[in-house]
Amino acid sequence: MTPLHPLDQATTLVPTGERRAIGATSPFYANMAGPFGGATAAVLLRAVLDDPACLGDPIALTVNFCGPIADGPFEVSWVEKRAGRTVQHWTVDLTQNGKVAATASVVCARRTETWTHQPSAIPTVPPASAVEPLALGERDGWLRRYAFRVIEGPPLFGLPPTDGPRSARTVCWLNDLPERTLDFLSLAALSDAFLVRIIQVRGTLGPMGTITLTTYFHTDGEALTANGARPVLGVADANVFHRGFADQEARLWRDDGLLLATSVQASFFRD
Amino acid sequence: MTPLHPLDQATTLVPTGERRAIGATSPFYANMAGPFGGATAAVLLRAVLDDPACLGDPIALTVNFCGPIADGPFEVSWVEKRAGRTVQHWTVDLTQNGKVAATASVVCARRTETWTHQPSAIPTVPPASAVEPLALGERDGWLRRYAFRVIEGPPLFGLPPTDGPRSARTVCWLNDLPERTLDFLSLAALSDAFLVRIIQVRGTLGPMGTITLTTYFHTDGEALTANGARPVLGVADANVFHRGFADQEARLWRDDGLLLATSVQASFFRD
Repeated sequence: MTPLHPLDQATTLVPTGERRAIGATSPFYANMAGPFGGATAAVLLRAVLDDPACLGDPIALTVNFCGPIADGPFEVSWVEKRAGRTVQHWTVDLTQNGKVAATASVVCARRTETWTHQPSAIPTVPPASAVEPLALGERDGWLRRYAFRVIEGPPLFGLPPTDGPRSARTVCWLNDLPERTLDFLSLAALSDAFLVRIIQVRGTLGPMGTITLTTYFHTDGEALTANGARPVLGVADANVFHRGFADQEARLWRDDGLLLATSVQASFFRD
Repeated sequence: MTPLHPLDQATTLVPTGERRAIGATSPFYANMAGPFGGATAAVLLRAVLDDPACLGDPIALTVNFCGPIADGPFEVSWVEKRAGRTVQHWTVDLTQNGKVAATASVVCARRTETWTHQPSAIPTVPPASAVEPLALGERDGWLRRYAFRVIEGPPLFGLPPTDGPRSARTVCWLNDLPERTLDFLSLAALSDAFLVRIIQVRGTLGPMGTITLTTYFHTDGEALTANGARPVLGVADANVFHRGFADQEARLWRDDGLLLATSVQASFFRD
């Protein structure tokens, strides 16, 4: 029997009733406090995608991180709020001990052939094969679940704080470790695989955390399968850090230039 | 008695029970099919902001447009999903005849003084006073609720379809009509005040509509009050139009360069 990939294991849901299931945090995706947000996003998305009534591919996913998630089991429940012929809206709750720890809304749709136009072009960068993966040293947990081939804006490792803020921009090739054929779960998690930008910009590690994450999926499942396990190019940046909150934007491209997903998130920080 | 501003009228909610109220669509914000999405976003946000338990300023608003909203009354209900000391999560439903027509999640917070840094600079443009408002001709409804002082990428009016796609980018000064002191309701509506980008790019008017909208608010209520009724600078753009769906990004700045809000949306389109 082939062992489950850590992402499939971390997103496994055991049904306990009508649109209710139990899951558990995974040490493979452990973060500083509770699980990596991308893994939580993937769990909430999977609840909907695995529902027999799911209409098609995900178009949009918003995850609100409402409270800490403790290591261990959690409950997930989901509701179909409205469905038309081609678009379907869901909401999802993740609870622990009766308290809501995360909520999500998911839009799914039957995609159709239409005019296609992609004004947003992939940046010109060296191929993934020409970039060494980041050395993670002693670091463990979710960082070990990705190869980060950083072209611009390496994460804080070894970067001391500076007098002035650094650029918030990171450009890097990313892939799951162990390698895994790309799908929507992987892409949802990848959209959160950039360190919170305050670290990038200040080089400090004060209290901080993502409070809400929205990811748009711009293509269909076949285009993801066709990617196989090849690295995707990610670009992250931020617009503002102000009065305790900051934003982040991310884009993920297939290596042939197809835009796979775009994402925004808001995070809190303290000085 | 001063008559209510159309936005205040369109977002008036009459309580009918515990975190339940009735509102109604407003002809002032009529769109091609149902109300202007920005007005719906403002209604759902107002339900939360007017709740006595609301913790502070809104940080993030996601609105999912789940189905058509018919002209006339609607019901709104809201739930506090989780509240910490500084951050609070809400969800909101808008229903008509028992069917969910829109859902929202709202993150509110007590903002604190912290380090401030805004990497995203306002574009260099002529002042609003130097730009003529767009002539709307016979057009009525929500378009009449804004002065559009377009610097780049005028909307489709008078622009024939071209062989190739046009730029998806629009830059314009925007303000409420009649004039109104800026607040979070106004800003939420403004974040949807750019025509769906497929119109911009193709110059055609096929079936289309926003299905989900996420707006991040980057400053506090005092900074909005300080804006008064002065126009804010908006920039809208898009990354991709593919297999029936497209995205849009928007930024809104105060004229002194303070970033007020950023927004993303996904819309469907048919050829």
